[in-house]
Order: sequence, then C-alpha cells, then structure tokens
Amino acid sequence: MNDPLTLEDCRALDRADPLRSLRDLFDLPPGLIYLDGNSLGPLPRATAGRVAEAIGLQWGRDLIKSWNSAGWFDLPQRVGDKIAPLIGARPGEVLAVDSTSVNLYKVLWAALQLASGRAPGKRLVVSERSNFPTDLYIAQSLCRERGLQLKLVEAAEIEAALDEEVAVLMLTHVNYRTGAMHDMAALTAKAHACGALCVWDLAHSAGAVPVDLHAVQADFAVGCGYKYLNGGPGAPAFVWVHPRHLESGWQPLAGWWGHEAPFEFTPDYRPAAGILRYQCGTQPILSLIALDAGVDTVHAALPLGGIPALRRKSLSLTRLFIGMVQTRLQGHGFEIVSPLEDDWRGSQVSLSVEEGAYAIVQALIDAGVVGDFRAGDGQAQADLLRFGFCPLYLSHEEVWQAADRLQAIMASSQWREARYAQRHAVT
Amino acid sequence: MNDPLTLEDCRALDRADPLRSLRDLFDLPPGLIYLDGNSLGPLPRATAGRVAEAIGLQWGRDLIKSWNSAGWFDLPQRVGDKIAPLIGARPGEVLAVDSTSVNLYKVLWAALQLASGRAPGKRLVVSERSNFPTDLYIAQSLCRERGLQLKLVEAAEIEAALDEEVAVLMLTHVNYRTGAMHDMAALTAKAHACGALCVWDLAHSAGAVPVDLHAVQADFAVGCGYKYLNGGPGAPAFVWVHPRHLESGWQPLAGWWGHEAPFEFTPDYRPAAGILRYQCGTQPILSLIALDAGVDTVHAALPLGGIPALRRKSLSLTRLFIGMVQTRLQGHGFEIVSPLEDDWRGSQVSLSVEEGAYAIVQALIDAGVVGDFRAGDGQAQADLLRFGFCPLYLSHEEVWQAADRLQAIMASSQWREARYAQRHAVT
Repeated sequence: MNDPLTLEDCRALDRADPLRSLRDLFDLPPGLIYLDGNSLGPLPRATAGRVAEAIGLQWGRDLIKSWNSAGWFDLPQRVGDKIAPLIGARPGEVLAVDSTSVNLYKVLWAALQLASGRAPGKRLVVSERSNFPTDLYIAQSLCRERGLQLKLVEAAEIEAALDEEVAVLMLTHVNYRTGAMHDMAALTAKAHACGALCVWDLAHSAGAVPVDLHAVQADFAVGCGYKYLNGGPGAPAFVWVHPRHLESGWQPLAGWWGHEAPFEFTPDYRPAAGILRYQCGTQPILSLIALDAGVDTVHAALPLGGIPALRRKSLSLTRLFIGMVQTRLQGHGFEIVSPLEDDWRGSQVSLSVEEGAYAIVQALIDAGVVGDFRAGDGQAQADLLRFGFCPLYLSHEEVWQAADRLQAIMASSQWREARYAQRHAVT
Repeated sequence: MNDPLTLEDCRALDRADPLRSLRDLFDLPPGLIYLDGNSLGPLPRATAGRVAEAIGLQWGRDLIKSWNSAGWFDLPQRVGDKIAPLIGARPGEVLAVDSTSVNLYKVLWAALQLASGRAPGKRLVVSERSNFPTDLYIAQSLCRERGLQLKLVEAAEIEAALDEEVAVLMLTHVNYRTGAMHDMAALTAKAHACGALCVWDLAHSAGAVPVDLHAVQADFAVGCGYKYLNGGPGAPAFVWVHPRHLESGWQPLAGWWGHEAPFEFTPDYRPAAGILRYQCGTQPILSLIALDAGVDTVHAALPLGGIPALRRKSLSLTRLFIGMVQTRLQGHGFEIVSPLEDDWRGSQVSLSVEEGAYAIVQALIDAGVVGDFRAGDGQAQADLLRFGFCPLYLSHEEVWQAADRLQAIMASSQWREARYAQRHAVT
C-alpha cells in the first residue's frame, strides 16, 4: 500500500493529463461527480444539436428522402465502423443495431449452430455465474430449445471447465459487478483448443479498456452503446462476427434489413454479404444518431493517445480510489471486491460493506457523488457499491473528492438517517 | 362511377371536417402534399420539445435517476397502453418495444411452440405471397429451424388453404403494396376452426383503420410505430398477445427486461407476469419518447369521433382519389390495384401503370406531392405508385390537388424527362 495522493498531487496529475480537454465534450451538471458512466454515460454536448437536426430537418423537412440524403440507411454500418477501432475490429465488421440481449441471441444462436455442425456431441455452454443476468437468460433460452446445458462456474473455474463437451464459452469481458477483467486472449485460446467457440460481451469494455478481437481470434462479440460509448438511455448495441464465420453462418432474426437486396421485396430470404446479415428490422434512428454523437466522444481521444491513453488514465483513477479506500476508509467495514492488480481490473471499482450499502450510495448521491448500488443474492454475492471511472471526463481531483466525501459520510454515520433506507428500482 | 368532386366540393368537405384541427399537430413543410405517411409518418409539432427535454433535463441533468423519476422504466408499457385502444386491446396488454421484425419472431415462435404442444402433427405456416417480405423472412427462418413449411398463397386462396395441417396463419391485415384489407374476424374464425393460431401484423392498420383484437379473438399481433403512429424514423414497434396465451407461453428472446424481477439480478430466468415477458433488452428511450409523442397525435382524434371518424375521413379521401383517377386519368395506362369496395381497402391507394412508375413518382415529388414507388417482381407483381391517405393531417383539397398534378404530369409527358429515370434505394 502506497501513501495516498494528496489533493495537490491530484491537481498536478490533472494539469498534466493529456485527455483533460475531453471533459468539455460533456454537459455534466455543475459540481456533480459522476461515477456511474458504467451504467449510463453522461450527455455529450453535441448530442442535443445532432438529434434536433435529425428531427427538425431530416425528418420534419426532408421526410422519407432522408433515408438516402441523410444517410439513415447505412447508419448502423457507419456507427459500427466508428466502434470497430475501439475493439480491434475492422471497418465493415461491426453493426450498431438492436439491444445487447437481442444481438447476443443472434450470435449465440449462430455459434451453437456452427458448433453443432462441427461436432454434434458437444452439449455445454459455459459461462460465469456472476455474468450479467441477461446473458445467462438468453443462453438459458437457447439451451432449453436445443437440449443443451448451461454450465455456470466461478471466474477461477472457467479454464478447468473447458473440455471437449463445451460447444461455446460465453463471457462478459469485464464483470458488471466487480469490474474484474478476464484474459480474453488466454481464455479464447483455451476454448479453441477444446474445439469450442467464444462469444464475448464487451458491454463494460468498449470505450474503456483495450480490446483486440482480431488479435485474440475471437469468434463473436456484442456490446452496449449506453455505457462508456455515451450513446444515451437504451442506445442501440453493437454486434461483431469474425469474418471467418460470416459466410457459413446464419442468424435466426432474419429480417428484411439483413437481406441481400431489401428493396427488391422478394419473398425468399437471401442473406446479405458480411456483417449486414446480422441486421433484422428498422433501427431507431433518433437513438442511433445520439449513439453516433456518443461514440464521437471516444474518438476524440484517438489523436490524444487513443485507447492506451484512456487506459493509463483509467488505471490512474481507479488506483487513486483504491488507495484512498485502503488508507482513509479503514475501520468502516469496506472490502474492495475489484481486483487490486491493474491487469485484471476494468474501469470500475466495487466495494462491499458490512451493512448499509444501499443507504451509503444514497447518502453519497446527496453529497454530489453518483455511484450505484447492486444487490447481492443474500448468499455468496454481497451487496455492492459500484463506481465507474470514465477517463474521458473525470479528473483525479474529483476522484479524491469522492473518496473524501465517502469518508465524511461514514465518519458522521450520516448514511444511517432514515431517508436513505428506502429502496426503489435502479438500473 | 360517380362524377368526381370539384375543388369547391373538396373545400366544403374540409370546412365540415371534424378532424380538421388535427393538422396543426404536425410540422409539415409548407405547400407539401404528403401522401407517404404509410411509409414514414410526418413530424408532430410536440416531438422536438419532448425529445429535447428528455435529452437536456432527463438524461443531461438527472442522468441515471431518470429511469425512475422520468418514468423511462415503464415507458414501453405506458406507450403500449396508449396504443391498446387503437387496436382493440386492453391496458396492460401491449408493449412498445424492439422492431416489428423482432416482435414477429417472438410471437411466431411462441405461436409455433403453442401449436406444437396442442397438435404436434401440424406442419404448415400459411401466409400471403405478397405479405411484407420481412414477415416472410422471419417465418422462413423459424420454419427452417423447426422443419416446418411456409406455404404462400394469394389473398383469395387463404381460406381454402386453411386445413388441419396448418399450425399458424400469419397475415398482415392491410397489404403494404395494394392497401387491400383482410377480413380479420372471418379469417381468424376460420383458422381457429382448423385448430390454427393467428398472428396479425398491424403495420398498416394501427392508427388508420378500425381493429378490434379482442372482438375477433386474435391470438398474437405486432405492428409498426413509424407509419400511422407518427413515431419517427425506425420508431419502436409494438407487440400484443391475447391474455389466454400469456401464462402458458414463452418467448425465446428472454432478456432481463422480461424477467419477473430484473433488478434482483438472479441467474435463473423467471418470466414476468403478462405481456412484460415479451420485453427483452433495454429500449431506445429517445426514440420511444418520440413514439409517445406520435401516438398522442392519434389520441387527439379520440374526443373528435375516434377511430370511426378517422376511418370515415380516410375512406372519403381514398374515394376522392380513386374517383379522380377513374375520370381524370383515363388513357394514361393506370390501373387501380387497391380494392374499390370501401370495406376491403385500408388507408392507401396503389396504382400500376403501363410504364414509368418510378419516374412518375419522382416527377410528382418535384410537383410537391410525395407518394412512393414499390418495385414489382417483373412477373405477377407490377411496379406500383403508392399513396397513403392519413386522415389526421390531409385535406380533401390536397388530395384533389395531388390527382390534378398527376394528371398534369401525364398530360405533359413531363415524367419522361431523363432526370426522373435513375433509381436509388427507397424505403
């Protein structure tokens, strides 16, 4: 444990931060310290104008013509092309469409179809027990339909679970609860050695940590548009398929936008070339335009050092927070459940606490620091305080202040006030 | 054939139109006669402000809190509840989610599952050969997976095709090409008599023609948000399931939003009660808010006579157009392919023409009248000029002017100019 940084140290780091100017791309409420960008990225300044133009001019004035003149028609590909370099994919390989859950259904279905063609006896889909539930639910649905078994294991047991019975290894790269990050290269290689295919969910990775899908030879990937890509509430998600699986593969949500020639209106389905066959229906253009503006905020970091620079700053922020919890919050029952080793931590730090996790999060919000609460299962999984550290808009000083205010809340027992106790649904 | 109405007759009808005030709810370009609302409904005046508030205040200022405070969380249900009375559904039975294609996959999958449980030997899905292609593609995908056969017949052959081998009858109520409207009650009853289930696509019905899903005892329905509901480009679609099929039924896109308790984050899927289990992932909130504003424009007609009043005016508009084509456009090779009998016509009139359908549509656009072109298949299906007549914002005078300008274009052979010949993708 190092000595924690002082506030003056933090200010010096911020002055030297090559990404500092990116904060101005966002319209954050004054004074708010927003550590929830891993749930909903904040509003980029450009978004309101871009969407207003799409509504007033493209839709209102040009109407149906805008499918061509405003480029609505190929917007899923154009936004996908912007996401591609953030995840080690190539232009023309990514689509921004549908929700993460729907895209996961497409790719897991395709992966299982491919696996059963190669080796019909494989009967398992392996995933992590604390994977994001929607991934597990979609996998359950497909396993149930196909008579397969979804085998859930702890993170440390994944490698051992990979054997010849495994058809697909389906994982989220960075765990939504703990921020723990898998070794994508090693697990993909191990899965391939067993003849299994890999489906990666990049919901907590894209825009936040380095991902190189081609380098690790991944098979399929999906991800979220409304977290580190800052696309707005419920922004469309994205989907990637390795080109080696495209021409042979099929996906079940075979709607007209995935047809080779959707405007021929022919009764027989012929899948489009490449990733386009992973389109289904018409996309929500206004939300897709907001996603486009959100992805641009990550692209603004590319000339300033790119993903490596984002990663360096993200680690600097999470290390700072971890250090302050270790030194300033001793004796309050906190445990850092995120990995302490940089290599295995995403852009998030999660804490468990002996009691009052929900109330502490509420008291922090009142103190101007927005993190979030994730309920445990009352058994192995503890209730968590989650804090996301997005390097595009956060400063070291803000992280220092957040930890400082958390200490004040704990020292004063302020979180025990009755008003912080009542829960409501949060996302 | 009656004598066509004069321009003065049309103005008199407009003065007496009880729905006339609704035009002010839309932000239509001045002077434009918009007969393409069956493809993309025009911009409601309220939409820009509603979406700007969602961006600036709900997302920008309140951030993640808006899932609760701004009601994002149950927006799919609240918009669904507004759509319900337009289609003869009850509150709590409709969701505004995903695309029409994705929703069709859910309900057709559920219908086939239900059918195979009841009578395993049924091997056919029956649909109309000129049904909208995405419906046919989705059905092909599911039939292929389940070893079933998709049997496509002409509209007049549907009743005869219903026999004991049919698991599901899947139809679009109003045909996207011709505007021909099926007798939903009779076909549903006939299908049920054969032990088949009915899936209805209401893409060209909702907001335009009377639909009473409960009265006809329909089984499943989906529909589109961006046509007569004026929800904007790619607006979310809707899905309805008769309550008798909800508790027994399952749908395959079993994502977290369809879980009984999505924020418990439990690894095992337990479907939510009722229609909520037809949710999958997070919805595109900005586009969903625009849909909400669009549905409000149809609701504004409810105190002015409701769907019956909309239907009366729609028929008055389509009759006017048909009458003018019959009298003023003789000798130019047009044929009215939409049904001449009111009872079998939706809110659309389609024309075929001996040559130049695409060029004529382009020349009409230059003359300030927006309809659209739908390519034929070069065989049985002719190229079509499609005109949608939305009673919310169109006047009789505009329809008269549209037919008058079409006559002028034909009389002058203006459409033969080279600039109108080149095609590009249209939707």
